[in-house]
Amino acid sequence: MTEPIFLFAVHNHQPVGNFPWVFKQAFRDCYEPFLIALAEHPAIRFTLHFSGPLWEYMEAKERRSWDLVEEMADRGQLELLGGGFYEPVLSIIPEEDRSGQLRLMSDFLAENFGRRPRGLWLTERVWEPHLPKTLAGAGIEYTLLDEEHFHYAGIRDIERPYITEEEGSPLILFPVSKALRYLIPFRAIEDVRAHFREVAGRGGVAILGDDGEKFGLWPGTHKWVYEEGWLSGFLAFLENEGVRTMTYSEYLDSRPSLGLVYLPPASYEEMMEWVLEPADFDRFRALKREVSPEAQRFLRGGFFREFFLKYPESNHLHKRMLLVSREVRENPSPEAARKLYKAQCNDPYWHGVFGGLYLPHLRESAYQHLIEAEKRLPLNSGWETLDYDLDGREELFFRHDRFNLLLKPSSGGSLVEFDDRLLGRNLSDVLARRPESYHRQVDHGPGEGGKSIHEQAKKLPPEAASLLRYDWHPRYSLLDHFLHPQTTLDKFRTVDYGEQGDFANQEYKFTQEGNSAVLFRHGHFWAGGERSPIRVAKRIEPTEGHVLITYELENEGDKELAFLFGIEWNLYLLPQEWEVRKEKISLLGGKWHLDFSGGPAIWHFPLQTLSQSEEGYDIIQQGMCFLPHWKFSLAGRQKFGLTITLREGHES
Amino acid sequence: MTEPIFLFAVHNHQPVGNFPWVFKQAFRDCYEPFLIALAEHPAIRFTLHFSGPLWEYMEAKERRSWDLVEEMADRGQLELLGGGFYEPVLSIIPEEDRSGQLRLMSDFLAENFGRRPRGLWLTERVWEPHLPKTLAGAGIEYTLLDEEHFHYAGIRDIERPYITEEEGSPLILFPVSKALRYLIPFRAIEDVRAHFREVAGRGGVAILGDDGEKFGLWPGTHKWVYEEGWLSGFLAFLENEGVRTMTYSEYLDSRPSLGLVYLPPASYEEMMEWVLEPADFDRFRALKREVSPEAQRFLRGGFFREFFLKYPESNHLHKRMLLVSREVRENPSPEAARKLYKAQCNDPYWHGVFGGLYLPHLRESAYQHLIEAEKRLPLNSGWETLDYDLDGREELFFRHDRFNLLLKPSSGGSLVEFDDRLLGRNLSDVLARRPESYHRQVDHGPGEGGKSIHEQAKKLPPEAASLLRYDWHPRYSLLDHFLHPQTTLDKFRTVDYGEQGDFANQEYKFTQEGNSAVLFRHGHFWAGGERSPIRVAKRIEPTEGHVLITYELENEGDKELAFLFGIEWNLYLLPQEWEVRKEKISLLGGKWHLDFSGGPAIWHFPLQTLSQSEEGYDIIQQGMCFLPHWKFSLAGRQKFGLTITLREGHES
Repeated sequence: MTEPIFLFAVHNHQPVGNFPWVFKQAFRDCYEPFLIALAEHPAIRFTLHFSGPLWEYMEAKERRSWDLVEEMADRGQLELLGGGFYEPVLSIIPEEDRSGQLRLMSDFLAENFGRRPRGLWLTERVWEPHLPKTLAGAGIEYTLLDEEHFHYAGIRDIERPYITEEEGSPLILFPVSKALRYLIPFRAIEDVRAHFREVAGRGGVAILGDDGEKFGLWPGTHKWVYEEGWLSGFLAFLENEGVRTMTYSEYLDSRPSLGLVYLPPASYEEMMEWVLEPADFDRFRALKREVSPEAQRFLRGGFFREFFLKYPESNHLHKRMLLVSREVRENPSPEAARKLYKAQCNDPYWHGVFGGLYLPHLRESAYQHLIEAEKRLPLNSGWETLDYDLDGREELFFRHDRFNLLLKPSSGGSLVEFDDRLLGRNLSDVLARRPESYHRQVDHGPGEGGKSIHEQAKKLPPEAASLLRYDWHPRYSLLDHFLHPQTTLDKFRTVDYGEQGDFANQEYKFTQEGNSAVLFRHGHFWAGGERSPIRVAKRIEPTEGHVLITYELENEGDKELAFLFGIEWNLYLLPQEWEVRKEKISLLGGKWHLDFSGGPAIWHFPLQTLSQSEEGYDIIQQGMCFLPHWKFSLAGRQKFGLTITLREGHES
Repeated sequence: MTEPIFLFAVHNHQPVGNFPWVFKQAFRDCYEPFLIALAEHPAIRFTLHFSGPLWEYMEAKERRSWDLVEEMADRGQLELLGGGFYEPVLSIIPEEDRSGQLRLMSDFLAENFGRRPRGLWLTERVWEPHLPKTLAGAGIEYTLLDEEHFHYAGIRDIERPYITEEEGSPLILFPVSKALRYLIPFRAIEDVRAHFREVAGRGGVAILGDDGEKFGLWPGTHKWVYEEGWLSGFLAFLENEGVRTMTYSEYLDSRPSLGLVYLPPASYEEMMEWVLEPADFDRFRALKREVSPEAQRFLRGGFFREFFLKYPESNHLHKRMLLVSREVRENPSPEAARKLYKAQCNDPYWHGVFGGLYLPHLRESAYQHLIEAEKRLPLNSGWETLDYDLDGREELFFRHDRFNLLLKPSSGGSLVEFDDRLLGRNLSDVLARRPESYHRQVDHGPGEGGKSIHEQAKKLPPEAASLLRYDWHPRYSLLDHFLHPQTTLDKFRTVDYGEQGDFANQEYKFTQEGNSAVLFRHGHFWAGGERSPIRVAKRIEPTEGHVLITYELENEGDKELAFLFGIEWNLYLLPQEWEVRKEKISLLGGKWHLDFSGGPAIWHFPLQTLSQSEEGYDIIQQGMCFLPHWKFSLAGRQKFGLTITLREGHES
């Protein structure tokens, strides 16, 4: 019997902007003990990827891990994988940034460990068929993909490498075994042994590339992997039972034959389900259960880029990033490029079983780095019109060395982004509440009762029922509401009220007058089944130190209309960072103020989401909703004026 | 009720290398009468695409059509679409060639008709998500895709345009209605009227972009469209019943809102079935019938690039084209680039309901243009080793100003390409016989009994049974066979014999010795259930005017072995171009000769395929198979030598 060959790759990553204690804990419980265990078995060859944020942290604070990596790399036990330095999804960032991020990592590994990487860890294995050209251009010879990628192309033998090409640039592709992903480190060594024998019996190679966090950081794994000895048992098995471990490059140097393949865009199976809207998620899951194994190759979930359609907040971050990227290309600066690259870290752009997009501190970090990149570029103060998000409608962007305003006339004439450039904060970064497939309590696991986080059935927390209120419009600011005079804060908060106007998410027209942008809409007011014409106009005039917003409401009909008019603001603020005082809201501990004329009442409440993560469910405060509102009536043809001042302040 | 809006685009194409009489007939029966009919209705706006081969032919020979296009373009009735000039599938050619082909078309339209195109006809609607960047860079604002592309992304409303982006470069996408593709021009005007009303009732736009050959060139359509008056009836309906026709650009200038989409790679539904292997084709068809309408979006057939896996001959053409393209990039020359672009014309790279790859004259034209491009580049005479087809194994390429030889050690040590550079002919371009889904007589149509060629059930011809013999190895040359001494020509021809050696498609090793390449394999001979070691070595030594091929067979065992040893040649030759005379074969009317030592008998027979086309089934002679063979026995450890001379000749 042929000896089993095992290609073992481990990928370690923590997002840019994650809490320092997470980095620390990850090294303590996971990365370092893993390296220590491997270093004790010099005969076991393996392949390792750390993302840039981990390399930077390790270099500064985790010297023992760093030295172990160096020692094992020096003696040829360990091959290091390249990648985009700050772990971007390569297919969603511009080509020049792809090359820049790949170069940053290859240079880093060459300088510190003496070798440029030949292989690449493909972030979240998000594959698109044009990537080989970029990768070959960056000196990359191979990458790892999931076996699903190969199944979609009708390939059944996933125990050997393949080759693909783009424009004649080759790239070798290793299929990662899904069976091994679920076996290691979750099942008994005897199951792994049996699997290795089967693979070798078929003349194949056992190929694994998976998240290193499985070895100590995922819930329950530290105890299992180290204290209960799974890893030492596994390494002893590899060393003593004739398993031939090789690095990926060593295996390639043995000159295996390579079948040509062309793979459609894909990622791992779970990712292509997470990207689906809940109704489609259920339909797709049901379909997969019905269809015969031979026909499974024809089933395809979503496609990574569809996260931008599922989550407008992800789309905004992405299109904002593309805008900064274009400006960095136009004004090259290594410092600005590095900030941009940090903002491209994949985590806040999507959501699956990890928090990702739902985690405000990751989004905050991305915006902070975008703003920091912008600050290193020449500033053209003033208004600019551009269709940054490509919806065929222009947006208004005001930039200034102190703050940015981004207005979206086509969606409620709203304020989509308000950045404090000094602090590097996008205060408008508030995630709306929307349905997720896991909000309905069903078991999404494959039903094998395993330990992988993809398999764990989780119970919704008891507060779920009160939290699962979904927003019908994005949580931007300057949203104009006409509410029934009897509407209460609680009804508004729980989205249990009837909107009487058609303004909050509808199209406004705009003109520019001097330094002002004027947004206006001829819309309607409904009452008692009747429709009356009403006009809302808002003039936004930024000047030194403040922004003056002047509203004019005009009853364009003849009937008198009575309502509660509210102007909604949604801002990302920590609990101690805001205060409502009569007709004012103090923001960021007094760094900014909102002053309202006309003596409004101001409702306010936290916006909370319920999302899933590795550990279970998270209830996360995404921001504060403020609704200054005025109760009054307008006679036919009557007008009403209001002003809002957004101003810098110096008191705390 | 809103007036129906109809966006009408027609795409006309004939492949590079198609017979001149086809071009002539196409203008006579189809393109010209269509233009005449439209010119009589100046109020009807439409959009038109001609591929480069048609523009060139029209400019030279079809002045009436040319003048009609000019007249209608001048008066704004007609918008012309751009594209890759010689109609390449954009995703399978290098980026620089994409840009070059797009520029060639845009320049041509600007010079001749005064406007650069804003829209693009996407060849065979083969979409990949990275195309927008290239297209935006070429000044293209929009293209047309099939509604299937949108369904795969979960989009239900296909009666409006969308927008997508790559790296922030936008591209507007119009979904082509499948219902309209089947209605126009095949159904009664009243059905079209009803459909237009439905679309307008939903607030949508009727969007059609389809092959112009439906209007007169497809079987039966000339009579129906012109003689029986379908087109005049349709145009009268458009003009007199308040249908608002617009060019695509006019419609875009009306500033419709554009939803953002991200579409996975796709083409029209039929294409993604044609690319599948027959067993998968059946499985996929069955699956589609079983699955509910809401879940159809999750079904995905193949992916255009998989044609390279289904047909090794398409893969060879593609990888050979990529090689020439690289050399053209390294030695820029507009003449070489134009020849290369002609070789990129899509038709011979795939096969569906049209002949395509199965048509030898289209493949011949592609190779001719590749050789013509090569002739315009600096020639490095001699051997070169390279892995041109990216299978992880090197090939041997010998180039000379008179001929090229391309040998593939990893597949039988065979001769994959023999080019006569003076004639611009690849004599090795022989398509193997392989199963096709339509070889089994089933009705693949949607069963509505319509007139579209996608719907017509065709009957296999009576000769089918004798033709449907499938090859177990590619039809290259220098293939080494060990056959039972009783094997007959007829058994060999019908692939009804037992191969006793393991050489014809197995891996040979190689070395280079001076100007010779030596290919050798230690293989086996099977007889009576026993296996004996046998070695085949072949030395290929090209010199001025001829190639000397020296064989050595060695019985590496002790047992005497009796067999018939044959060296198979498959060459693409017309019936009058070859002659077998005793121990010689005369090729290309005496321009080349094959002389064999040792007095072989020479079997020969035509290789015929059965393939489908618009009109039904074609029986096509793909080339001649020659099997010079020697009957002898080898005692243990005995060797046997043979020589073959491939030489230029001057007799006829």
